[in-house]
Amino acid sequence: MASPKYTLVTACLVIIGSEVLSGRTRDANLQYLGQRLNQRGIRLTEARVIPDVPDVIVATLNECRAKFDYVFTTGGIGPTHDDITAACVARAFGVALERNAEARRMLRRNYQSDAELTEARLKMTEIPAGASLIENPVSHAPGFRMENVFVFAGIPRIMQAMFEVIVDTLEGGAPVLSKAVTARLPEGILGGPLADIQKRFPDVEIGSYPFSRDGMHGASLVMRGTDAARLEETAAAIRQMVRDLGCEPIDADMA
Amino acid sequence: MASPKYTLVTACLVIIGSEVLSGRTRDANLQYLGQRLNQRGIRLTEARVIPDVPDVIVATLNECRAKFDYVFTTGGIGPTHDDITAACVARAFGVALERNAEARRMLRRNYQSDAELTEARLKMTEIPAGASLIENPVSHAPGFRMENVFVFAGIPRIMQAMFEVIVDTLEGGAPVLSKAVTARLPEGILGGPLADIQKRFPDVEIGSYPFSRDGMHGASLVMRGTDAARLEETAAAIRQMVRDLGCEPIDADMA
Repeated sequence: MASPKYTLVTACLVIIGSEVLSGRTRDANLQYLGQRLNQRGIRLTEARVIPDVPDVIVATLNECRAKFDYVFTTGGIGPTHDDITAACVARAFGVALERNAEARRMLRRNYQSDAELTEARLKMTEIPAGASLIENPVSHAPGFRMENVFVFAGIPRIMQAMFEVIVDTLEGGAPVLSKAVTARLPEGILGGPLADIQKRFPDVEIGSYPFSRDGMHGASLVMRGTDAARLEETAAAIRQMVRDLGCEPIDADMA
Repeated sequence: MASPKYTLVTACLVIIGSEVLSGRTRDANLQYLGQRLNQRGIRLTEARVIPDVPDVIVATLNECRAKFDYVFTTGGIGPTHDDITAACVARAFGVALERNAEARRMLRRNYQSDAELTEARLKMTEIPAGASLIENPVSHAPGFRMENVFVFAGIPRIMQAMFEVIVDTLEGGAPVLSKAVTARLPEGILGGPLADIQKRFPDVEIGSYPFSRDGMHGASLVMRGTDAARLEETAAAIRQMVRDLGCEPIDADMA
Protein backbone atom coordinates (compact mmCIF):
# COMPACT_ATOMS: atom_id res chain seq x y z
CA MET A 1 0.00 0.00 0.00
CA ALA A 2 1.75 3.11 -1.22
CA SER A 3 1.40 6.52 0.33
CA PRO A 4 -0.87 8.85 -1.66
CA LYS A 5 0.99 11.31 -3.82
CA TYR A 6 1.42 14.73 -2.34
CA THR A 7 3.55 17.74 -3.14
CA LEU A 8 6.39 18.34 -0.73
CA VAL A 9 6.33 21.98 0.29
CA THR A 10 9.63 23.18 1.74
CA ALA A 11 10.65 26.04 4.00
CA CYS A 12 13.84 27.53 5.35
CA LEU A 13 14.25 29.56 8.53
CA VAL A 14 16.94 32.25 8.47
CA ILE A 15 17.77 33.36 12.01
CA ILE A 16 19.44 36.75 11.76
CA GLY A 17 21.36 37.41 14.93
CA SER A 18 24.99 37.68 15.97
CA GLU A 19 23.72 37.25 19.55
CA VAL A 20 22.60 33.70 18.77
CA LEU A 21 25.99 32.80 17.27
CA SER A 22 27.88 34.27 20.22
CA GLY A 23 25.79 32.16 22.60
CA ARG A 24 24.28 35.16 24.34
CA THR A 25 20.75 34.23 23.26
CA ARG A 26 19.31 30.78 22.70
CA ASP A 27 16.96 30.59 19.74
CA ALA A 28 13.43 29.45 20.49
CA ASN A 29 11.79 30.14 17.13
CA LEU A 30 13.06 27.13 15.19
CA GLN A 31 11.20 24.64 17.37
CA TYR A 32 7.93 26.56 17.21
CA LEU A 33 8.12 27.05 13.47
CA GLY A 34 9.11 23.44 12.76
CA GLN A 35 6.12 22.12 14.67
CA ARG A 36 3.59 24.59 13.29
CA LEU A 37 4.76 24.14 9.70
CA ASN A 38 4.43 20.36 10.01
CA GLN A 39 0.81 20.80 11.03
CA ARG A 40 0.32 22.90 7.91
CA GLY A 41 1.95 20.27 5.66
CA ILE A 42 5.14 22.25 5.14
CA ARG A 43 8.56 20.80 5.89
CA LEU A 44 11.11 22.97 7.57
CA THR A 45 13.95 21.65 5.41
CA GLU A 46 16.79 23.81 6.62
CA ALA A 47 17.60 26.54 9.11
CA ARG A 48 20.52 28.94 9.11
CA VAL A 49 21.84 31.20 11.79
CA ILE A 50 23.73 34.14 10.32
CA PRO A 51 25.36 37.26 11.76
CA ASP A 52 24.18 40.88 11.42
CA VAL A 53 26.39 41.38 8.35
CA PRO A 54 24.63 42.89 5.30
CA ASP A 55 26.49 40.94 2.58
CA VAL A 56 25.86 37.65 4.37
CA ILE A 57 22.17 38.42 4.91
CA VAL A 58 21.63 39.43 1.27
CA ALA A 59 23.48 36.40 -0.14
CA THR A 60 21.67 33.99 2.20
CA LEU A 61 18.26 35.44 1.36
CA ASN A 62 18.88 35.20 -2.37
CA GLU A 63 20.16 31.64 -2.15
CA CYS A 64 17.33 30.45 0.10
CA ARG A 65 14.42 32.14 -1.63
CA ALA A 66 15.44 30.45 -4.88
CA LYS A 67 15.88 27.07 -3.21
CA PHE A 68 12.86 26.74 -0.89
CA ASP A 69 9.14 27.37 -1.32
CA TYR A 70 9.03 29.61 1.73
CA VAL A 71 11.67 31.53 3.64
CA PHE A 72 11.04 32.89 7.13
CA THR A 73 13.43 35.30 8.79
CA THR A 74 13.56 36.22 12.46
CA GLY A 75 15.38 39.11 14.06
CA GLY A 76 16.71 42.51 13.14
CA ILE A 77 13.54 44.55 12.69
CA GLY A 78 13.77 46.89 15.69
CA PRO A 79 14.72 50.58 16.04
CA THR A 80 18.48 50.32 16.62
CA HIS A 81 21.46 50.49 14.25
CA ASP A 82 21.95 46.71 14.37
CA ASP A 83 18.43 46.10 13.00
CA ILE A 84 19.17 45.81 9.30
CA THR A 85 16.87 43.07 8.03
CA ALA A 86 14.43 45.28 6.06
CA ALA A 87 17.29 47.09 4.31
CA CYS A 88 18.88 43.76 3.40
CA VAL A 89 15.62 42.33 2.05
CA ALA A 90 15.23 45.43 -0.13
CA ARG A 91 18.79 44.94 -1.44
CA ALA A 92 18.22 41.22 -2.04
CA PHE A 93 15.13 41.98 -4.15
CA GLY A 94 16.66 45.06 -5.80
CA VAL A 95 13.88 47.39 -4.62
CA ALA A 96 13.83 50.64 -2.64
CA LEU A 97 13.40 50.80 1.13
CA GLU A 98 10.56 53.24 1.81
CA ARG A 99 8.79 54.72 4.80
CA ASN A 100 5.41 53.02 4.71
CA ALA A 101 2.32 55.04 5.71
CA GLU A 102 0.34 52.02 6.87
CA ALA A 103 3.28 50.81 8.99
CA ARG A 104 3.39 54.26 10.57
CA ARG A 105 -0.32 54.08 11.44
CA MET A 106 0.19 50.65 13.03
CA LEU A 107 3.19 51.79 15.05
CA ARG A 108 1.50 55.04 16.12
CA ARG A 109 -0.93 53.03 18.31
CA ASN A 110 1.90 52.50 20.79
CA TYR A 111 2.28 56.21 21.56
CA GLN A 112 0.36 59.17 22.94
CA SER A 113 1.66 61.74 20.45
CA ASP A 114 3.49 62.06 17.13
CA ALA A 115 6.44 63.51 19.05
CA GLU A 116 7.11 60.03 20.46
CA LEU A 117 7.70 58.74 16.92
CA THR A 118 11.45 59.30 17.12
CA GLU A 119 13.67 58.79 14.08
CA ALA A 120 14.75 55.48 15.61
CA ARG A 121 11.13 54.33 15.85
CA LEU A 122 10.33 55.55 12.33
CA LYS A 123 13.10 53.25 11.11
CA MET A 124 10.65 50.44 11.95
CA THR A 125 8.29 51.82 9.27
CA GLU A 126 10.90 51.39 6.52
CA ILE A 127 9.65 48.54 4.35
CA PRO A 128 10.88 47.26 0.96
CA ALA A 129 8.75 48.64 -1.90
CA GLY A 130 6.13 46.13 -2.96
CA ALA A 131 6.08 44.17 0.30
CA SER A 132 2.82 43.51 2.13
CA LEU A 133 2.74 44.17 5.86
CA ILE A 134 2.26 41.53 8.54
CA GLU A 135 0.40 42.75 11.58
CA ASN A 136 2.18 42.58 14.93
CA PRO A 137 -0.52 42.02 17.56
CA VAL A 138 1.97 42.39 20.41
CA SER A 139 4.05 45.51 19.86
CA HIS A 140 2.55 46.87 16.60
CA ALA A 141 5.79 47.38 14.60
CA PRO A 142 4.84 45.24 11.60
CA GLY A 143 6.68 42.45 9.81
CA PHE A 144 6.26 42.01 6.08
CA ARG A 145 6.07 39.57 3.23
CA MET A 146 8.04 40.01 0.01
CA GLU A 147 7.18 37.27 -2.51
CA ASN A 148 8.02 34.01 -0.69
CA VAL A 149 10.00 35.68 2.10
CA PHE A 150 8.30 36.40 5.44
CA VAL A 151 10.06 38.76 7.82
CA PHE A 152 9.28 38.34 11.52
CA ALA A 153 10.55 39.81 14.78
CA GLY A 154 13.07 37.77 16.78
CA ILE A 155 11.39 37.90 20.18
CA PRO A 156 9.54 34.56 20.38
CA ARG A 157 6.24 35.94 21.69
CA ILE A 158 6.09 38.47 18.86
CA MET A 159 7.38 36.07 16.21
CA GLN A 160 4.71 33.53 17.13
CA ALA A 161 1.92 36.11 17.04
CA MET A 162 3.07 37.28 13.59
CA PHE A 163 3.25 33.70 12.33
CA GLU A 164 -0.30 33.02 13.48
CA VAL A 165 -1.46 36.10 11.54
CA ILE A 166 -0.16 34.69 8.23
CA VAL A 167 -0.34 30.92 8.73
CA ASP A 168 -3.65 30.53 6.90
CA THR A 169 -2.18 32.16 3.80
CA LEU A 170 0.50 29.44 3.45
CA GLU A 171 -0.16 26.71 0.93
CA GLY A 172 0.84 23.39 2.43
CA GLY A 173 0.82 19.78 1.34
CA ALA A 174 -0.46 16.89 3.40
CA PRO A 175 0.16 17.46 7.13
CA VAL A 176 3.10 15.51 8.47
CA LEU A 177 1.86 12.97 11.02
CA SER A 178 4.00 11.23 13.57
CA LYS A 179 3.92 8.38 16.01
CA ALA A 180 6.45 7.29 18.58
CA VAL A 181 7.15 4.00 20.31
CA THR A 182 9.47 3.88 23.29
CA ALA A 183 11.69 0.81 23.66
CA ARG A 184 13.59 0.14 26.87
CA LEU A 185 16.43 -1.39 24.88
CA PRO A 186 19.81 0.03 23.83
CA GLU A 187 20.15 1.27 20.26
CA GLY A 188 22.96 -1.24 19.70
CA ILE A 189 20.36 -4.02 20.02
CA LEU A 190 17.56 -2.22 18.17
CA GLY A 191 19.73 -1.00 15.29
CA GLY A 192 19.78 -4.13 13.11
CA PRO A 193 16.07 -5.04 13.08
CA LEU A 194 15.06 -1.37 12.94
CA ALA A 195 17.08 -0.89 9.74
CA ASP A 196 15.16 -3.83 8.24
CA ILE A 197 11.83 -2.18 9.11
CA GLN A 198 13.00 1.09 7.54
CA LYS A 199 13.71 -0.86 4.33
CA ARG A 200 10.19 -2.34 4.37
CA PHE A 201 8.61 1.11 4.85
CA PRO A 202 10.70 3.48 2.72
CA ASP A 203 7.86 6.05 2.59
CA VAL A 204 7.92 6.49 6.38
CA GLU A 205 10.89 8.26 8.00
CA ILE A 206 11.99 6.37 11.07
CA GLY A 207 14.27 8.12 13.56
CA SER A 208 15.83 6.61 16.66
CA TYR A 209 16.59 8.94 19.59
CA PRO A 210 18.44 7.36 22.48
CA PHE A 211 17.88 8.25 26.10
CA SER A 212 19.27 7.09 29.38
CA ARG A 213 17.18 7.31 32.56
CA ASP A 214 18.04 5.84 35.96
CA GLY A 215 20.86 3.84 34.39
CA MET A 216 18.49 2.28 31.85
CA HIS A 217 19.21 2.75 28.14
CA GLY A 218 16.33 3.14 25.75
CA ALA A 219 15.30 4.79 22.52
CA SER A 220 12.35 6.72 21.28
CA LEU A 221 11.49 5.41 17.81
CA VAL A 222 9.75 8.14 15.89
CA MET A 223 7.84 7.60 12.64
CA ARG A 224 6.90 10.48 10.36
CA GLY A 225 4.82 10.47 7.22
CA THR A 226 1.64 11.75 5.64
CA ASP A 227 -0.43 8.54 5.53
CA ALA A 228 -2.02 7.63 8.86
CA ALA A 229 -2.70 3.99 7.91
CA ARG A 230 0.84 3.50 6.70
CA LEU A 231 2.22 5.03 9.91
CA GLU A 232 0.13 2.62 11.98
CA GLU A 233 1.44 -0.36 9.95
CA THR A 234 4.99 0.81 10.64
CA ALA A 235 4.22 1.28 14.33
CA ALA A 236 2.77 -2.25 14.49
CA ALA A 237 5.97 -3.66 12.95
CA ILE A 238 8.09 -1.71 15.43
CA ARG A 239 6.02 -2.85 18.42
CA GLN A 240 6.40 -6.47 17.26
CA MET A 241 10.17 -6.00 16.84
CA VAL A 242 10.47 -4.68 20.41
CA ARG A 243 8.45 -7.66 21.73
CA ASP A 244 10.63 -10.07 19.75
CA LEU A 245 13.62 -8.53 21.52
CA GLY A 246 12.00 -9.40 24.85
CA CYS A 247 10.65 -6.03 25.91
CA GLU A 248 7.21 -4.42 26.11
CA PRO A 249 6.87 -1.42 23.74
CA ILE A 250 5.26 1.78 25.02
CA ASP A 251 3.30 4.09 22.73
CA ALA A 252 4.51 7.61 23.37
CA ASP A 253 2.92 10.97 22.78
CA MET A 254 5.09 13.26 20.83
CA ALA A 255 5.35 16.68 19.24
CA MET B 1 43.47 54.32 19.27
CA ALA B 2 42.95 51.46 16.85
CA SER B 3 42.40 47.87 17.82
CA PRO B 4 45.52 45.71 17.38
CA LYS B 5 45.52 43.64 14.21
CA TYR B 6 44.49 40.04 14.64
CA THR B 7 43.45 37.27 12.32
CA LEU B 8 39.76 36.51 12.36
CA VAL B 9 39.34 32.75 12.69
CA THR B 10 35.90 31.54 11.59
CA ALA B 11 33.84 28.47 12.31
CA CYS B 12 30.56 26.96 11.17
CA LEU B 13 28.37 24.54 13.11
CA VAL B 14 26.44 22.01 11.04
CA ILE B 15 23.64 20.48 13.09
CA ILE B 16 22.64 17.24 11.41
CA GLY B 17 19.20 16.24 12.58
CA SER B 18 15.73 16.01 11.08
CA GLU B 19 14.48 15.89 14.69
CA VAL B 20 15.68 19.45 15.27
CA LEU B 21 13.91 20.71 12.12
CA SER B 22 10.67 18.96 13.03
CA GLY B 23 10.73 20.61 16.44
CA ARG B 24 10.97 17.33 18.34
CA THR B 25 14.36 18.24 19.81
CA ARG B 26 15.67 21.66 20.72
CA ASP B 27 19.35 22.13 19.93
CA ALA B 28 21.59 22.99 22.86
CA ASN B 29 24.98 22.69 21.20
CA LEU B 30 25.06 26.00 19.31
CA GLN B 31 25.04 28.07 22.48
CA TYR B 32 27.78 26.03 24.14
CA LEU B 33 29.99 26.05 21.07
CA GLY B 34 29.47 29.77 20.38
CA GLN B 35 30.56 30.69 23.91
CA ARG B 36 33.52 28.30 24.08
CA LEU B 37 34.83 29.28 20.64
CA ASN B 38 34.71 32.97 21.60
CA GLN B 39 36.93 32.22 24.57
CA ARG B 40 39.32 30.54 22.17
CA GLY B 41 39.35 33.52 19.79
CA ILE B 42 37.27 31.79 17.13
CA ARG B 43 34.06 33.30 15.79
CA LEU B 44 31.12 31.04 15.20
CA THR B 45 30.18 32.77 11.96
CA GLU B 46 27.30 30.61 10.82
CA ALA B 47 25.25 27.61 11.87
CA ARG B 48 23.08 25.38 9.74
CA VAL B 49 20.49 22.84 10.70
CA ILE B 50 20.06 20.22 7.98
CA PRO B 51 18.03 17.00 7.66
CA ASP B 52 19.33 13.42 7.64
CA VAL B 53 19.55 13.43 3.83
CA PRO B 54 22.90 12.27 2.37
CA ASP B 55 23.05 14.65 -0.63
CA VAL B 56 22.26 17.64 1.58
CA ILE B 57 24.85 16.65 4.19
CA VAL B 58 27.59 16.10 1.58
CA ALA B 59 26.87 19.38 -0.24
CA THR B 60 26.71 21.36 3.00
CA LEU B 61 29.97 19.87 4.27
CA ASN B 62 31.79 20.65 1.05
CA GLU B 63 30.49 24.20 0.90
CA CYS B 64 31.24 24.95 4.55
CA ARG B 65 34.68 23.35 4.81
CA ALA B 66 35.83 25.52 1.90
CA LYS B 67 34.28 28.66 3.37
CA PHE B 68 35.19 28.54 7.08
CA ASP B 69 38.39 27.80 8.97
CA TYR B 70 36.70 25.16 11.11
CA VAL B 71 33.52 23.12 10.68
CA PHE B 72 31.91 21.28 13.57
CA THR B 73 29.13 18.78 13.05
CA THR B 74 26.79 17.39 15.68
CA GLY B 75 24.49 14.41 15.39
CA GLY B 76 24.20 11.22 13.38
CA ILE B 77 27.06 9.12 14.75
CA GLY B 78 25.11 6.39 16.59
CA PRO B 79 24.34 2.75 15.78
CA THR B 80 21.03 3.10 13.92
CA HIS B 81 20.18 3.39 10.21
CA ASP B 82 19.54 7.16 10.51
CA ASP B 83 23.12 7.76 11.72
CA ILE B 84 24.83 8.60 8.45
CA THR B 85 27.28 11.36 9.27
CA ALA B 86 30.51 9.32 8.97
CA ALA B 87 29.45 7.90 5.59
CA CYS B 88 28.61 11.39 4.36
CA VAL B 89 31.93 12.85 5.54
CA ALA B 90 33.74 10.05 3.67
CA ARG B 91 31.75 10.87 0.52
CA ALA B 92 32.39 14.60 0.91
CA PHE B 93 36.16 13.99 1.09
CA GLY B 94 36.14 11.24 -1.55
CA VAL B 95 37.68 8.64 0.78
CA ALA B 96 36.65 5.16 1.90
CA LEU B 97 34.64 4.47 5.06
CA GLU B 98 36.55 1.83 7.02
CA ARG B 99 36.16 -0.10 10.24
CA ASN B 100 38.78 1.41 12.50
CA ALA B 101 40.67 -0.86 14.90
CA GLU B 102 41.35 1.88 17.45
CA ALA B 103 37.68 2.93 17.43
CA ARG B 104 36.77 -0.70 18.10
CA ARG B 105 39.12 -0.81 21.11
CA MET B 106 37.59 2.38 22.46
CA LEU B 107 34.04 1.14 22.03
CA ARG B 108 34.85 -2.30 23.45
CA ARG B 109 35.29 -0.73 26.92
CA ASN B 110 31.50 -0.41 27.16
CA TYR B 111 30.91 -4.17 27.01
CA GLN B 112 31.69 -7.37 28.87
CA SER B 113 32.34 -9.51 25.80
CA ASP B 114 32.99 -9.31 22.07
CA ALA B 115 29.56 -10.84 21.51
CA GLU B 116 27.99 -7.58 22.63
CA LEU B 117 29.67 -5.78 19.73
CA THR B 118 26.63 -6.19 17.47
CA GLU B 119 26.78 -5.17 13.81
CA ALA B 120 24.81 -2.04 14.76
CA ARG B 121 27.44 -1.11 17.36
CA LEU B 122 30.31 -1.87 14.98
CA LYS B 123 28.79 0.70 12.62
CA MET B 124 30.06 3.23 15.17
CA THR B 125 33.64 2.13 14.39
CA GLU B 126 33.29 3.05 10.71
CA ILE B 127 35.48 6.10 10.18
CA PRO B 128 36.56 7.89 6.97
CA ALA B 129 40.06 6.80 5.89
CA GLY B 130 42.66 9.30 7.05
CA ALA B 131 40.57 10.79 9.86
CA SER B 132 41.95 11.06 13.39
CA LEU B 133 39.73 9.90 16.23
CA ILE B 134 38.31 12.13 18.95
CA GLU B 135 37.94 10.42 22.29
CA ASN B 136 34.47 10.22 23.79
CA PRO B 137 34.90 10.30 27.57
CA VAL B 138 31.20 9.66 28.18
CA SER B 139 30.08 6.73 26.04
CA HIS B 140 33.33 5.77 24.28
CA ALA B 141 32.07 5.69 20.65
CA PRO B 142 34.57 8.17 19.20
CA GLY B 143 34.10 11.23 17.04
CA PHE B 144 36.73 12.16 14.50
CA ARG B 145 38.54 14.96 12.74
CA MET B 146 39.02 15.05 8.98
CA GLU B 147 41.12 18.06 7.93
CA ASN B 148 39.19 21.08 9.25
CA VAL B 149 35.98 19.15 9.96
CA PHE B 150 35.26 17.91 13.50
CA VAL B 151 32.52 15.32 13.92
CA PHE B 152 30.81 15.21 17.32
CA ALA B 153 27.86 13.38 18.86
CA GLY B 154 24.55 15.24 19.10
CA ILE B 155 23.76 14.57 22.76
CA PRO B 156 24.94 17.76 24.50
CA ARG B 157 26.74 16.06 27.39
CA ILE B 158 28.76 13.94 24.95
CA MET B 159 29.27 16.74 22.44
CA GLN B 160 30.67 18.99 25.15
CA ALA B 161 33.03 16.32 26.45
CA MET B 162 34.34 15.69 22.93
CA PHE B 163 34.81 19.41 22.32
CA GLU B 164 36.84 19.76 25.51
CA VAL B 165 39.10 16.92 24.31
CA ILE B 166 40.06 18.83 21.15
CA VAL B 167 39.71 22.48 22.15
CA ASP B 168 43.43 22.94 22.85
CA THR B 169 44.29 21.82 19.31
CA LEU B 170 42.29 24.68 17.76
CA GLU B 171 44.24 27.69 16.58
CA GLY B 172 42.37 30.82 17.55
CA GLY B 173 42.89 34.53 17.20
CA ALA B 174 42.47 37.06 19.97
CA PRO B 175 39.70 36.01 22.39
CA VAL B 176 36.47 37.89 21.86
CA LEU B 177 35.73 40.01 24.92
CA SER B 178 32.39 41.49 25.81
CA LYS B 179 30.81 44.00 28.13
CA ALA B 180 27.18 44.85 28.69
CA VAL B 181 25.41 47.89 30.04
CA THR B 182 21.74 47.72 30.91
CA ALA B 183 19.63 50.82 30.23
CA ARG B 184 16.11 51.17 31.62
CA LEU B 185 15.06 53.08 28.53
CA PRO B 186 13.15 51.97 25.44
CA GLU B 187 15.14 51.23 22.29
CA GLY B 188 13.17 53.93 20.47
CA ILE B 189 14.88 56.52 22.70
CA LEU B 190 18.30 54.84 22.76
CA GLY B 191 18.44 54.11 19.02
CA GLY B 192 19.63 57.51 17.73
CA PRO B 193 22.50 58.25 20.13
CA LEU B 194 23.54 54.59 20.15
CA ALA B 195 23.97 54.62 16.36
CA ASP B 196 26.27 57.64 16.79
CA ILE B 197 28.40 55.75 19.30
CA GLN B 198 28.63 52.76 16.93
CA LYS B 199 29.97 55.15 14.26
CA ARG B 200 32.63 56.43 16.68
CA PHE B 201 33.72 52.89 17.58
CA PRO B 202 33.53 50.92 14.32
CA ASP B 203 35.92 48.25 15.62
CA VAL B 204 33.57 47.32 18.46
CA GLU B 205 30.33 45.49 17.63
CA ILE B 206 27.45 47.01 19.57
CA GLY B 207 24.21 45.05 19.84
CA SER B 208 20.99 46.21 21.48
CA TYR B 209 18.69 43.56 22.97
CA PRO B 210 15.38 44.83 24.27
CA PHE B 211 13.61 43.41 27.29
CA SER B 212 10.44 44.19 29.12
CA ARG B 213 10.10 43.45 32.83
CA ASP B 214 7.26 44.50 35.12
CA GLY B 215 5.93 46.83 32.44
CA MET B 216 9.30 48.60 32.16
CA HIS B 217 11.05 48.65 28.78
CA GLY B 218 14.81 48.47 28.65
CA ALA B 219 17.69 47.21 26.58
CA SER B 220 20.87 45.31 27.19
CA LEU B 221 23.63 47.04 25.22
CA VAL B 222 26.32 44.51 24.45
CA MET B 223 29.79 45.39 23.19
CA ARG B 224 32.08 42.81 21.63
CA GLY B 225 35.66 43.13 20.50
CA THR B 226 39.18 41.94 21.08
CA ASP B 227 40.74 45.02 22.70
CA ALA B 228 39.87 45.41 26.38
CA ALA B 229 40.82 49.11 26.56
CA ARG B 230 38.76 49.92 23.48
CA LEU B 231 35.77 48.04 24.93
CA GLU B 232 36.01 50.05 28.12
CA GLU B 233 36.11 53.33 26.14
CA THR B 234 32.96 52.25 24.33
CA ALA B 235 31.30 51.27 27.59
CA ALA B 236 32.15 54.67 29.08
CA ALA B 237 30.55 56.41 26.10
CA ILE B 238 27.44 54.26 26.44
CA ARG B 239 27.14 54.89 30.18
CA GLN B 240 27.40 58.63 29.54
CA MET B 241 24.75 58.41 26.82
CA VAL B 242 22.36 56.65 29.22
CA ARG B 243 22.98 59.30 31.89
CA ASP B 244 22.39 62.06 29.34
CA LEU B 245 19.02 60.45 28.64
CA GLY B 246 18.20 60.80 32.35
CA CYS B 247 18.73 57.25 33.53
CA GLU B 248 21.38 55.47 35.59
CA PRO B 249 23.27 52.79 33.58
CA ILE B 250 23.86 49.38 35.13
CA ASP B 251 26.92 47.31 34.26
CA ALA B 252 25.74 43.81 33.55
CA ASP B 253 27.49 40.47 33.63
CA MET B 254 27.12 38.54 30.46
CA ALA B 255 28.12 35.41 28.67
